[in-house]
Amino acid sequence: MKYKDKARWDVVSLGEVMLRLDPGEGRIHTARNFTAWEGGGEYNVARGLRRCFRLRAAAVTAFVDNAVGRLVEDFILQGGVDTSLIKWVADDGIGRTARNGLNFTERGFGIRGAKGCSDRGNTAVSQLKKGDIDWEAIFGTHGVRHFHTGGIFAALSATTPEVAIEALQCARKHGTVTSYDLNYRPSLWKGIGGKAKAQEVNKEIARHVDVMIGNEEDFAACLGMAESNVDAIDDNAFKSMIAEVVKQYPNFKVVATTLRQVHSATVNDWAALAWQDGALYKSVERKRLEILDRVGGGDSFASGLIYGLMKTGDAKVAV
Amino acid sequence: MKYKDKARWDVVSLGEVMLRLDPGEGRIHTARNFTAWEGGGEYNVARGLRRCFRLRAAAVTAFVDNAVGRLVEDFILQGGVDTSLIKWVADDGIGRTARNGLNFTERGFGIRGAKGCSDRGNTAVSQLKKGDIDWEAIFGTHGVRHFHTGGIFAALSATTPEVAIEALQCARKHGTVTSYDLNYRPSLWKGIGGKAKAQEVNKEIARHVDVMIGNEEDFAACLGMAESNVDAIDDNAFKSMIAEVVKQYPNFKVVATTLRQVHSATVNDWAALAWQDGALYKSVERKRLEILDRVGGGDSFASGLIYGLMKTGDAKVAV
Amino acid sequence: MKYKDKARWDVVSLGEVMLRLDPGEGRIHTARNFTAWEGGGEYNVARGLRRCFRLRAAAVTAFVDNAVGRLVEDFILQGGVDTSLIKWVADDGIGRTARNGLNFTERGFGIRGAKGCSDRGNTAVSQLKKGDIDWEAIFGTHGVRHFHTGGIFAALSATTPEVAIEALQCARKHGTVTSYDLNYRPSLWKGIGGKAKAQEVNKEIARHVDVMIGNEEDFAACLGMAESNVDAIDDNAFKSMIAEVVKQYPNFKVVATTLRQVHSATVNDWAALAWQDGALYKSVERKRLEILDRVGGGDSFASGLIYGLMKTGDAKVAV
Amino acid sequence: MKYKDKARWDVVSLGEVMLRLDPGEGRIHTARNFTAWEGGGEYNVARGLRRCFRLRAAAVTAFVDNAVGRLVEDFILQGGVDTSLIKWVADDGIGRTARNGLNFTERGFGIRGAKGCSDRGNTAVSQLKKGDIDWEAIFGTHGVRHFHTGGIFAALSATTPEVAIEALQCARKHGTVTSYDLNYRPSLWKGIGGKAKAQEVNKEIARHVDVMIGNEEDFAACLGMAESNVDAIDDNAFKSMIAEVVKQYPNFKVVATTLRQVHSATVNDWAALAWQDGALYKSVERKRLEILDRVGGGDSFASGLIYGLMKTGDAKVAV
Amino acid sequence: MKYKDKARWDVVSLGEVMLRLDPGEGRIHTARNFTAWEGGGEYNVARGLRRCFRLRAAAVTAFVDNAVGRLVEDFILQGGVDTSLIKWVADDGIGRTARNGLNFTERGFGIRGAKGCSDRGNTAVSQLKKGDIDWEAIFGTHGVRHFHTGGIFAALSATTPEVAIEALQCARKHGTVTSYDLNYRPSLWKGIGGKAKAQEVNKEIARHVDVMIGNEEDFAACLGMAESNVDAIDDNAFKSMIAEVVKQYPNFKVVATTLRQVHSATVNDWAALAWQDGALYKSVERKRLEILDRVGGGDSFASGLIYGLMKTGDAKVAV
Amino acid sequence: MKYKDKARWDVVSLGEVMLRLDPGEGRIHTARNFTAWEGGGEYNVARGLRRCFRLRAAAVTAFVDNAVGRLVEDFILQGGVDTSLIKWVADDGIGRTARNGLNFTERGFGIRGAKGCSDRGNTAVSQLKKGDIDWEAIFGTHGVRHFHTGGIFAALSATTPEVAIEALQCARKHGTVTSYDLNYRPSLWKGIGGKAKAQEVNKEIARHVDVMIGNEEDFAACLGMAESNVDAIDDNAFKSMIAEVVKQYPNFKVVATTLRQVHSATVNDWAALAWQDGALYKSVERKRLEILDRVGGGDSFASGLIYGLMKTGDAKVAV
Repeated sequence: MKYKDKARWDVVSLGEVMLRLDPGEGRIHTARNFTAWEGGGEYNVARGLRRCFRLRAAAVTAFVDNAVGRLVEDFILQGGVDTSLIKWVADDGIGRTARNGLNFTERGFGIRGAKGCSDRGNTAVSQLKKGDIDWEAIFGTHGVRHFHTGGIFAALSATTPEVAIEALQCARKHGTVTSYDLNYRPSLWKGIGGKAKAQEVNKEIARHVDVMIGNEEDFAACLGMAESNVDAIDDNAFKSMIAEVVKQYPNFKVVATTLRQVHSATVNDWAALAWQDGALYKSVERKRLEILDRVGGGDSFASGLIYGLMKTGDAKVAV
Repeated sequence: MKYKDKARWDVVSLGEVMLRLDPGEGRIHTARNFTAWEGGGEYNVARGLRRCFRLRAAAVTAFVDNAVGRLVEDFILQGGVDTSLIKWVADDGIGRTARNGLNFTERGFGIRGAKGCSDRGNTAVSQLKKGDIDWEAIFGTHGVRHFHTGGIFAALSATTPEVAIEALQCARKHGTVTSYDLNYRPSLWKGIGGKAKAQEVNKEIARHVDVMIGNEEDFAACLGMAESNVDAIDDNAFKSMIAEVVKQYPNFKVVATTLRQVHSATVNDWAALAWQDGALYKSVERKRLEILDRVGGGDSFASGLIYGLMKTGDAKVAV
Repeated sequence: MKYKDKARWDVVSLGEVMLRLDPGEGRIHTARNFTAWEGGGEYNVARGLRRCFRLRAAAVTAFVDNAVGRLVEDFILQGGVDTSLIKWVADDGIGRTARNGLNFTERGFGIRGAKGCSDRGNTAVSQLKKGDIDWEAIFGTHGVRHFHTGGIFAALSATTPEVAIEALQCARKHGTVTSYDLNYRPSLWKGIGGKAKAQEVNKEIARHVDVMIGNEEDFAACLGMAESNVDAIDDNAFKSMIAEVVKQYPNFKVVATTLRQVHSATVNDWAALAWQDGALYKSVERKRLEILDRVGGGDSFASGLIYGLMKTGDAKVAV
Repeated sequence: MKYKDKARWDVVSLGEVMLRLDPGEGRIHTARNFTAWEGGGEYNVARGLRRCFRLRAAAVTAFVDNAVGRLVEDFILQGGVDTSLIKWVADDGIGRTARNGLNFTERGFGIRGAKGCSDRGNTAVSQLKKGDIDWEAIFGTHGVRHFHTGGIFAALSATTPEVAIEALQCARKHGTVTSYDLNYRPSLWKGIGGKAKAQEVNKEIARHVDVMIGNEEDFAACLGMAESNVDAIDDNAFKSMIAEVVKQYPNFKVVATTLRQVHSATVNDWAALAWQDGALYKSVERKRLEILDRVGGGDSFASGLIYGLMKTGDAKVAV
Repeated sequence: MKYKDKARWDVVSLGEVMLRLDPGEGRIHTARNFTAWEGGGEYNVARGLRRCFRLRAAAVTAFVDNAVGRLVEDFILQGGVDTSLIKWVADDGIGRTARNGLNFTERGFGIRGAKGCSDRGNTAVSQLKKGDIDWEAIFGTHGVRHFHTGGIFAALSATTPEVAIEALQCARKHGTVTSYDLNYRPSLWKGIGGKAKAQEVNKEIARHVDVMIGNEEDFAACLGMAESNVDAIDDNAFKSMIAEVVKQYPNFKVVATTLRQVHSATVNDWAALAWQDGALYKSVERKRLEILDRVGGGDSFASGLIYGLMKTGDAKVAV
Repeated sequence: MKYKDKARWDVVSLGEVMLRLDPGEGRIHTARNFTAWEGGGEYNVARGLRRCFRLRAAAVTAFVDNAVGRLVEDFILQGGVDTSLIKWVADDGIGRTARNGLNFTERGFGIRGAKGCSDRGNTAVSQLKKGDIDWEAIFGTHGVRHFHTGGIFAALSATTPEVAIEALQCARKHGTVTSYDLNYRPSLWKGIGGKAKAQEVNKEIARHVDVMIGNEEDFAACLGMAESNVDAIDDNAFKSMIAEVVKQYPNFKVVATTLRQVHSATVNDWAALAWQDGALYKSVERKRLEILDRVGGGDSFASGLIYGLMKTGDAKVAV
């Protein structure tokens, strides 16, 4: 795995960015105030690389050009992520033809788990289709060292998988390293073909990926791997699955996952594994880690892993 | 105009209830916090009658059964409005099949006007169709003294005008007095036939209305009346239009309007007019009224007018 | 224990509802802001049954008709609990003749325990006396499936125990199942006869109760049972006491308690026990449960227990 | 009018200090958050003299020793007013025997007036009686340059007028200048003898006052003067009344009042008048003054007036 | 005045960016909470051009690399202004060698004026000296259409005027249009030579400016013009001064000013004037404009004026 | 160790008091709001003695007389600590000649540690020099029972150690017991001589101290003791060091320390040790203590210890 020297951006992500509305300590259904944030699985990785590791990042996404879209842009600006690749769609004034995605999410506490309420139907980004984005300009003319997308984007609509593949192919053509976080979301797939479609789409996409990220359940649901049903932070279950995965997808250069044991919404054990060149590396194990808000934990991992790979090329260090 | 003696509810409204997200003093597109409220033109009238005048009110509407829908219900409960007539629609987890309406609205201040960003496409209430609500049970079995709906509900989709007519007809059949606030919203009509369709729909609905409410622009846009283009708080312009209106719609028993002169978002002149039995009555004129947040001002007027009519039957007092 | 089929309300509670003023993370005596809530041991049970379990609930209580009383009503409306049984008392403008109860409560954190400051002297509800409430209309004309009151209400004044007994008798006469949470509060009893009076009152009330709830200390203080002084989550201590209790009060059909081991204000072990037909059932034990705010924990338990009993009649499931 | 040279405090006030709970922009009866402040007509004057004019001030009052009382003490400390003269009363845990006063007050905006809800019945300070405070120590041993009390304190109970007289007499005996703000509050007098009692009490107290403050309505209600019913900021009405007042109370050295014309809760005209040695002096007239929160406006005036008198002895400058 | 076609940035500003701490409605000296913003006279102009007019802007400034500096960077990122030209200075951990500027500012209301408390001594930006910034790279290699700096930056220290002149010269050499807002701040000049030094510095700088902005007092204090002492929104006073100014500085292509009449902190009259090619143009007059927060009003004017000039080259339209 | 009977203050502290700006749950570098507090190692001890233990406390410090200085004074007033010994320095309007200290501090959570950003260069208090404070008046004329200062104050500048020594000498001369908390802060010493200077200064100061407080690292860095590098809550390491310390400084009557084992920012083990008359006493060990905000934990310990010593003279009880 080798990163290019010259490029306008260190990392470009492709995916939805939603306005997150967070009721703080309380519950959504009795809230009177919400704190706003931006978020989106693929974008979070780019933002982490920009703000924690100071790389130059850009996000490819689409918004309706109204006050909510401009608010999410305001957050992306604050995140330091280049907004010049955003596709802006005209506003019809009420959100019938296209919308911006919203995500009401509460944090959970103790025995009450985190709980979200997505309102992301009919969004501008879900309407992206092949040909909408000038990937040649991005990967060819300007240049990108690392490209990241994932299974949430691929599940937004019937057209987004084609956009993901178009982007991944163009990236690899221009020597950009690609990563993909499987992130299986049953609710997104439910209306557009379910798990069967998820596997069809992800199996096709996986052929174009260098760094594949996902937990055991993701590999099972998206790529049809057998699941071990082991709950603890145990690397053996993952080890045999990885062997099978890399056999099927010889293009994978790194495969990585987080391992979590949930004691409560407030206390988790955490660790991570990464496979490279036949070897499996485990991170430090964090036992009884205090959690304030678990949202984006997996994306942070991906962000750190990619940084490590870009810096050292070595999954052992990166994990 | 005579109100029934026995009825389970004093007033029932039909219309969308949205979650309003309010950035306070600031702007939506740079906000980091939102205060949540509920709101909707038709519902606001029922809520005003419940909380300011202590009448028994119920709201007919529809929500997706998720945390956002339950939050709006929580607000309606707080408003004291009966929630038993709400139609709950199953949640698909992401808002592709149906959603709950959202309304980001900022207040304006001085020369900066109030500004909203509606996100109400594809809502559960816009999918209401003839036959979904058991109006016979509401107006017949239980009984209602006053029924209110309006031009926002009628503009939600191709099916909602039929629901409004169905409700108005059933109300009048059972001796319930009906009111309608024209509330012309170009953005809602734009995608479903524009002003031409708005006139077709509202002219049909107007045949079933006892108390018609709207400003001059509403009467022009919705019922095809000629507009005078007089800007000040002047009743002459309205007077001649009213003469024409009641000739075309002899079923109107009361016609009412608010008159506003906007000096700035913070200072307005306000007054109101009401016509009944050939006479035109004017309210006290409020010059240079300080405005904190103008949203719902027209609905409050409708609420007070209806209360006055229910209490006295006399538009002169009511206005 | 059999619940009626036809009834206007599933549950009616009798007790004080106070305005709770909560300084959040900080202390009352240095606060500059308070979040407002409503609360009251007996009412909390009805509210839980309404909002968590969607039963139809009403609260019998009394308020002075001023802005504070109307604020508590606003909270009860939001809670979905029927406010039509509230007795409203005229306001003298300053709270000399009657007041609404206030409760300043801080949450505690770590080794700093939760701490409250009650301001509930001379409240409208404490002035309730026999004959003030038309129990025949409530339990007879309208019908109620379950009636709940408790030892806090009984400790408010010299007249409230009589109201509790009047209500319990009327409830049972009309086939309504009754529950009572002993909730011994020394500060309330101190000025009106102390523990001796508390026992006299509670022993009399206990004769009319089907489902008796209380922790070991409550049974000792209110009903004169011997206390074991075992601190841990241990059911043996409770077991022998229960045997004695049900011998003295053969009318008890279910006796239940929560067991708590307080490691700190932030971490508790929790469990619960319920006795029915000679058998003692223990809930799942929750070890090292993270606590955000302990207020109302016992009331939530009562709420869940009653729901379980109403749904299944089986204390084993309910607990 | 001559002020002493040596004294421990420049000003001492006697009156209730309440915890004010302020819902901000909104209404009390729908609030979810309150900002806390301290306030009390007599105390406000001392605090203004301390924080705006840096005099050494102390407050004589009484609190129940609980978290609410300690919170008000915390505010008084912040106000820089000496807390060593506060009488602390034991807490009974629930506020049956004595309480601390609370004052829920909303600000008003535009045509909606400011509105308060006092909860000050049965407070520790209203139970103050002759002999409770060691006035000899305060005025004799330590020395005070100016003593201020008022008609709110005198209306708290049957015993507080005697405390006021006891203090005023002791003050004058030791050469301390005394002031009194009539501040007629009908709600306070209603339960303890009404306007007749108010006049009896205030006429007696007035004999011991050097600087008498009040608006026209106050002089009418408290001292039985004839009222002119002139609404505007007009000094003629006040002029003739003052002539009569100083004839009846030759002990008055200065008589002062504020004149307000209320255009709305947000816009008022303000001015003030002061009489001294037969001459009437008028302040600058402030037309269309913007008001954020009117509470304490009169007390601020008294504070500034007293400072001016202490500094210059000249009412013309002071006003 | 002609703007270049090719350039990396439309506008670059040079000046300090401070963290503003804003107590909201209240006063700094009794605040318990502050809202944070970023601000700085020169930067505000660039930010306005970026966020209101969507031009590509960059800010030249310097920060100490600590959490406060990074917070200001976070605000600049949110403002969409390019942060790549910021000079980062090492942190000594306590701010002895260099600091980041802070500005505590309250808004004023009614008769209480806005009031600030600057804490900007010894800042990193005040230590900028000739040679620190590679202006050739900025104006030559990359290209800039408009460069803006002003009299606040020039007053920061003995070295900043040289930096301003170095930048202005380099800008003009590369065909970049330059603007300068005089913004006279006596407190900044007090310690480094007073008004005499201010005039010496500004007269020198003025030789390199195309668009000069300032109110009458600024021209008097900074360039030694005679002041008319006319208070109202009157253009005659300014007219004769402008004639003199442009005679002395023939390099000025546009001279502009705001005219304000302060009725109170909450209500101002506003207008603006611009001179170009011998003609004086006046903006719309805004009478009795409601003001929420006046900070940055002049910078907003400069921002709009520059945009108008860049778009049309015509001061008549721009003003 | 014997405390005086007659004294105006129970405790006087000498040290900087800063405005703390706290971003709450979040991070400084992305905050939009800050909660303000006051804080300073030496002052915190006096404030704790005043508010937790109700002793009469005063703080010797210096502020610039601007809104920030007055805000810190407002906090000190609220803290009940006497402000009459504060030295006020004239404001230059921008903070070039002298400033007030600021401290941005975030709390940390779980694996993210607490983190601060001090902005305390060039403060008024750091400019205090010998002769500025009239110690004879404080310790002689008025009298003080206990005097506390510490190693943070001594590290502010080249002149503050002399002020500390001047104060300590004067205190002991008048029979006031003295305490000193070593509180080694490398960032403060870095610019003024580093650890070598820190030892020189602290060794000199230590000769005048009765009660010496510090953790193992403090004793090593400030007094040159050998460090054991034992991480756990273990008293053996400290025991041998203490033996050595008291040999070198026979004037120490009590030596005390806190022992902390940091599991995470949220969970610590805590204990404390105190040596007196050759014996070492250990406090209760608090295992897995939940931490909301660790700032000031050591100062609270000092405060409690001093109270215990003042009350009982016995370090065993005090600890």
